[in-house]
Amino acid sequence: MADKEISQAVIARLPRYFRYLGELRDDGVERISSRELSRLMNVTASQIRQDFNHFGGFGQQGYGYNVEYLYAEIAKILGLDRTHHLIIIGAGNLGQALANYVDFGRKGFLVTGIFDVNPALYGKKIRGIEVRPMEEMARFVRENNVDIAVLTVPKSAAVGVAGQLVKVGISAIWNFAHVDLDVPGEVKVENVHLSDSLIRLSYLLNRKGAQEEGGV
Amino acid sequence: MADKEISQAVIARLPRYFRYLGELRDDGVERISSRELSRLMNVTASQIRQDFNHFGGFGQQGYGYNVEYLYAEIAKILGLDRTHHLIIIGAGNLGQALANYVDFGRKGFLVTGIFDVNPALYGKKIRGIEVRPMEEMARFVRENNVDIAVLTVPKSAAVGVAGQLVKVGISAIWNFAHVDLDVPGEVKVENVHLSDSLIRLSYLLNRKGAQEEGGV
Repeated sequence: MADKEISQAVIARLPRYFRYLGELRDDGVERISSRELSRLMNVTASQIRQDFNHFGGFGQQGYGYNVEYLYAEIAKILGLDRTHHLIIIGAGNLGQALANYVDFGRKGFLVTGIFDVNPALYGKKIRGIEVRPMEEMARFVRENNVDIAVLTVPKSAAVGVAGQLVKVGISAIWNFAHVDLDVPGEVKVENVHLSDSLIRLSYLLNRKGAQEEGGV
Repeated sequence: MADKEISQAVIARLPRYFRYLGELRDDGVERISSRELSRLMNVTASQIRQDFNHFGGFGQQGYGYNVEYLYAEIAKILGLDRTHHLIIIGAGNLGQALANYVDFGRKGFLVTGIFDVNPALYGKKIRGIEVRPMEEMARFVRENNVDIAVLTVPKSAAVGVAGQLVKVGISAIWNFAHVDLDVPGEVKVENVHLSDSLIRLSYLLNRKGAQEEGGV
């Protein structure tokens, strides 16, 4: 398989390619040239050709890329050719927002359980899924083939919950708590630190101001 | 000012430094060596020294870095030494979750308005802020010195709303809609594409499986 040699930089770009190719596919587009895709995605055509070469997506002169083939290849590399079972820990606004994202289900990410420590929320249904007490989490993960836990608890609770998740053998944590988790290497973590993202925007604004004043 | 030469890679790391230094400061720590910070943040000490050198954060032999000074310097570079006024467009679960983030206010990001197209939500208060009809958005932005708009509307509405925001002269858009916005260069955009993030986690899981089977 080719993906062994794919660099982190290419990997980081794959979700965006996947999104655009999926939209083209949904629109019934069968093939596309690197130039057309370049215009659409606002990256250079040579970047696209280089990236796609990494996983056997060789365009043909005068034909372009086969959209369906590329889409399926990228899906395989990204592990999107199989179903993932998710639980959400923390049934606050953010947890509920994530539970309601229709798009995740369409990509094979199925939310099967939602947990919270607040008894007032027990039994409440979010998109048909009942909020359960945290005490039931460990058994639920073991019995329901859960591979991903989504962490939307406050920062102060996150490290403790992550410890519980590691103990029960979770494979991956999607972490929205604003703290870096210290888990064993075999547990994969993807952080969504929203404050950091907002701060990057503030930086761009700040630079913009500096430039408009003539640069410093 | 030193920040003119700071590379994108360093900039991308600044929010995390800012977070750790803020926590140290809150804990009353006055100075820290690159070695201690390295252990804490799980990056190499030489990386830290290189990064801090970019903006005049020169540690002293046997003394280490002055936490308060570094924190203030990074805050300045990131534009966190002034207040930003935000509006949230889309008062669904995600918009409400963001409005409720206490941490943003603490960093100088003040949510001053929330807008939606759903009349059922008009007048509803989220953290004391009333949800207003979209028709009032343009005037509100002009009259209230709003510089950042947070976009939590569905993908189908996002491009249209972004167009309205550009027209009314917004400076920056924090975009949670799963679509790339095409706005003039002077309007700064930071995307939070949650699906892309979840897909990266799926990739890590997929690689992990491949490795455990002996690699391919």
